[in-house]
Amino acid sequence: MAKRIDSTPKADGYRMPGEYEPQEKMWMLWPERPDNWRNGGKPAQKAFIKIAEAYSRFVPVTMGVNSGQYANARNMLPPEVRVVEISNDDSWIRDCGPSFVINDKGDVRGVDWDFNAWGGLVDGLYFPWDQDELVARKVCEIENIDSYKVAGFVMEGGSFHVDGEGTLITTEMCLLSEGRNPHLSKEEIEQYLKDYLNLEKIIWLPDGIDPEETNGHVDDVACFARPGEVICIYTEDEDHPYYDAAQKAYKVLSEATDAKGRKLKVHKLAVPKEMVRITGADGIDYVEGTMPREEGEMAIASYLNFGLVNGGIIFPQFGDEHDELAMEQIKAIFPDYEVVGVRSEEVAYGGGNIHCISQQQPKG
Amino acid sequence: MAKRIDSTPKADGYRMPGEYEPQEKMWMLWPERPDNWRNGGKPAQKAFIKIAEAYSRFVPVTMGVNSGQYANARNMLPPEVRVVEISNDDSWIRDCGPSFVINDKGDVRGVDWDFNAWGGLVDGLYFPWDQDELVARKVCEIENIDSYKVAGFVMEGGSFHVDGEGTLITTEMCLLSEGRNPHLSKEEIEQYLKDYLNLEKIIWLPDGIDPEETNGHVDDVACFARPGEVICIYTEDEDHPYYDAAQKAYKVLSEATDAKGRKLKVHKLAVPKEMVRITGADGIDYVEGTMPREEGEMAIASYLNFGLVNGGIIFPQFGDEHDELAMEQIKAIFPDYEVVGVRSEEVAYGGGNIHCISQQQPKG
Repeated sequence: MAKRIDSTPKADGYRMPGEYEPQEKMWMLWPERPDNWRNGGKPAQKAFIKIAEAYSRFVPVTMGVNSGQYANARNMLPPEVRVVEISNDDSWIRDCGPSFVINDKGDVRGVDWDFNAWGGLVDGLYFPWDQDELVARKVCEIENIDSYKVAGFVMEGGSFHVDGEGTLITTEMCLLSEGRNPHLSKEEIEQYLKDYLNLEKIIWLPDGIDPEETNGHVDDVACFARPGEVICIYTEDEDHPYYDAAQKAYKVLSEATDAKGRKLKVHKLAVPKEMVRITGADGIDYVEGTMPREEGEMAIASYLNFGLVNGGIIFPQFGDEHDELAMEQIKAIFPDYEVVGVRSEEVAYGGGNIHCISQQQPKG
Repeated sequence: MAKRIDSTPKADGYRMPGEYEPQEKMWMLWPERPDNWRNGGKPAQKAFIKIAEAYSRFVPVTMGVNSGQYANARNMLPPEVRVVEISNDDSWIRDCGPSFVINDKGDVRGVDWDFNAWGGLVDGLYFPWDQDELVARKVCEIENIDSYKVAGFVMEGGSFHVDGEGTLITTEMCLLSEGRNPHLSKEEIEQYLKDYLNLEKIIWLPDGIDPEETNGHVDDVACFARPGEVICIYTEDEDHPYYDAAQKAYKVLSEATDAKGRKLKVHKLAVPKEMVRITGADGIDYVEGTMPREEGEMAIASYLNFGLVNGGIIFPQFGDEHDELAMEQIKAIFPDYEVVGVRSEEVAYGGGNIHCISQQQPKG
């Protein structure tokens, strides 16, 4: 049965694996929040279904859903997707779900960070977030997986990537933001990450590309392709809104070594040429306390925010001139993977993409 | 993944095992309904915890809970009890949960009956019951168990007992009631039961002991102890409110043969000497559409409504003069079982007992 454990994964010999390591399950949450998703979440639900179907080709998918949407979600999703009740404030399980760690014997445990809707009362995106806060624990209970509760430490799964061999990349913009852990120094934050994900080396990129939303999650900017190799968004167009963040990240990564002392190989991944812009914002409820979304506003759209799963890559497409280029780049980086493109503007309208709405459970 | 299956268990070679066969899990639902349980369900929750703890000695227990009570239930229950969200209208998983069937290879499937709160708009106990109706499906989804949806046929798990070898006992009072399946003849009802539980023989007892509530569920009156042997409540006190139902049931069972042609051996089980009477009814909300419970009203209390689980018996005790007698009788019927007595008046106040609030999942 699922116990709470007081020690740390490092002390117990557990580490967070890379996303390219074998996966047992993929977790998602059903979108419905009418003050974030246009038209009552109906277009977003269709996008989530396509993403769940794509993942299902490589791994069993479980969709968590609020009680009121259970019947609709069960009806709309294909039978191979398991639907379970997991109350949530919104559908970003990458951020509110557990980070899973494993040991050499193949035991799996969860790490349950504090969650505060990307900034709490400082600059969080909605209030309250009490149901999101319980998601990690509920996932672990359903699976009978023991978990570590990291009380007093706010963290989101989308704000870091690990190589599974002791290295983590993150951004200062997010982890040092006023809305996360202002009571902790950079060194203390590093120590939490090292203890709970079992790491030796933290690589700090300066910025992400969405300062107003997640305060710059790294999962829009850079990730590991395999140990010793990273992918970084890249553009030479100085007028592109991601130019500065991408250039700075690329420079840091190009000069970095990982926990094993390897100099990182850095792969470039295109950014969309035109920005995805929100349409149909009049179909989004206004709610005091929720960040409003305006018609024509730039939505954050990054090809880097893809899903990596058991030989498959679920890859965002935006109907952009660079869709094909990015697809070719990712295929070149992962020659042995099947790359499945999915149109995901609807997810971008809500503030994230395929990586943000999924959480992999490693194979035990 | 959990599929819906259009055929029937009988056609597919599945049967419902007896409760004395090996069990994999026990399912319960957390009580909270303030118009049924006194004092916001707090005393009932404590009784449910004791019952869950008792079951936990013999089988892993999962407690389903409405979202709003998740944190409280998780906090109050011991760690060995798994807590998952399963929205429900009340906590009678015996009746709204799935009936599980198995085949010779050890595959397990669920049977998902229609549920209408014990009589629907005719004489149901509350309205609506839409969340209860989904419980069976949700349990099967969590477990990745395929299920049969028996559409158009109202049935509750507490209204029948099977021997696992082709025989079922039930009551006419319940199954032929106006609020269940008035569109079906007795023979058609038999056919549904035979098809979905894989039976050859239905033994009809006339009455149960709670005409106003479940319309006479058999699980307060009689059950199987093992193939060929039944237990029946028994009293010679003509003034006892259960006298008529008990005597009639005893007579039918004493003259009955089972599906294998065996004459049944009938064990007697005492009834409480004094009736359990509801106290603290002023702590129960009045809600239009919910059956009211009055101070001093007789609560249905039967020792027969016990839990049978992997060598253990979780046995109701009421603080009654006959508690000890009933305990001795049950030990004599089950000499190889450990009998755990649990005070369960609080469950009786709400309309049922240990068997009503638990649903066993057989070992695959």
